[in-house]
Amino acid sequence: MRGRKLLLLRPMLIDPVDPTKFKPGSNTIVAIDTLGAGEGELVMFSQGSSARQAEGLKQLPVDAAVVGLIDTVSIEGKKTYEAKNS
Amino acid sequence: MRGRKLLLLRPMLIDPVDPTKFKPGSNTIVAIDTLGAGEGELVMFSQGSSARQAEGLKQLPVDAAVVGLIDTVSIEGKKTYEAKNS
Amino acid sequence: MRGRKLLLLRPMLIDPVDPTKFKPGSNTIVAIDTLGAGEGELVMFSQGSSARQAEGLKQLPVDAAVVGLIDTVSIEGKKTYEAKNS
Amino acid sequence: MRGRKLLLLRPMLIDPVDPTKFKPGSNTIVAIDTLGAGEGELVMFSQGSSARQAEGLKQLPVDAAVVGLIDTVSIEGKKTYEAKNS
Amino acid sequence: MRGRKLLLLRPMLIDPVDPTKFKPGSNTIVAIDTLGAGEGELVMFSQGSSARQAEGLKQLPVDAAVVGLIDTVSIEGKKTYEAKNS
Repeated sequence: MRGRKLLLLRPMLIDPVDPTKFKPGSNTIVAIDTLGAGEGELVMFSQGSSARQAEGLKQLPVDAAVVGLIDTVSIEGKKTYEAKNS
Repeated sequence: MRGRKLLLLRPMLIDPVDPTKFKPGSNTIVAIDTLGAGEGELVMFSQGSSARQAEGLKQLPVDAAVVGLIDTVSIEGKKTYEAKNS
Repeated sequence: MRGRKLLLLRPMLIDPVDPTKFKPGSNTIVAIDTLGAGEGELVMFSQGSSARQAEGLKQLPVDAAVVGLIDTVSIEGKKTYEAKNS
Repeated sequence: MRGRKLLLLRPMLIDPVDPTKFKPGSNTIVAIDTLGAGEGELVMFSQGSSARQAEGLKQLPVDAAVVGLIDTVSIEGKKTYEAKNS
Repeated sequence: MRGRKLLLLRPMLIDPVDPTKFKPGSNTIVAIDTLGAGEGELVMFSQGSSARQAEGLKQLPVDAAVVGLIDTVSIEGKKTYEAKNS
């Protein structure tokens, strides 16, 4: 695990009041980042044995890994997220 | 993961007040779709190592996959969901 | 998955107020049934990689499987559930 | 699974108000017992693929297994649990 | 499992009111410690099949393992935790 960059992630949930918006969930994930995600970016992460399928993580005791950087999210046909650098 | 279609899923729970109805749960799932599910459809998804059993997903760092399109749901002998195109 | 019988399960929890009783939990499980469970019966289910250990499910992208039909449950020495046909 | 002794477990959580005490959690676990745990004892259990590492459980569709009987628990240097027969 | 040191862990979550702070979560984790963590230290743990990737734990029925000792945590550019002995 030495030298690995770890990120604190806050899973985003669909807001039950307005399903076209996200709101942060209450749990916190520590994930290995192999994609160079920046602070404030929306990422996709995987957990458990799925996370270890990510490149170079097969043998690591890792619970979560960032496996994608999100460009855009559309909910009910409405674009609800767009990455700043996209 | 490149070029994969990802869906935002809202798990449906049995309504404790009226068990013949569904209500949306509070968590949100990002799932790979290999079946061409449309917006508003009810699907079955699997998570973790189970999701990776789906065709073509063995080596992907994927947490969830759509593994079925639901035609009808019956709760306590009452049909509570029927797909529009079924 | 074609032709598989799927059941909606409501996990039962020990009632914190009266631990000799069950109350339904708030989440809902979709499980494959290979044992012919009937509506209203109390069953045991397994999830994830454990569920796939059940007979004939090794390669299926299945999240949950019914792995037992419950005859009787005893809590604190008191029989709290008995199957109708037992 | 035939003839296996199953136990209902109530996970114990650290009480947020007084961290030197336990309080029962709200969920309920059905676990295979291979250690002869008695009613009212504090045990350690494992879930999922970890549970199947326990002796004799490799091929069983089991979600949880009792993997240890607890003798004593110390929280913040204070002994908070001691088994009756220890 | 004989002779293994087990720790009670309280997962720390990002405080929704002030995201630069941690607050303890409500669940409790029993983890194997192979790194000599002391009481009150912030550690990183892994669960399930990920935990068993940690050195010497491959065959153990272990649900959680301490896989790292945390030196510093930064949230939104602000250092929010620093180990006493770092």
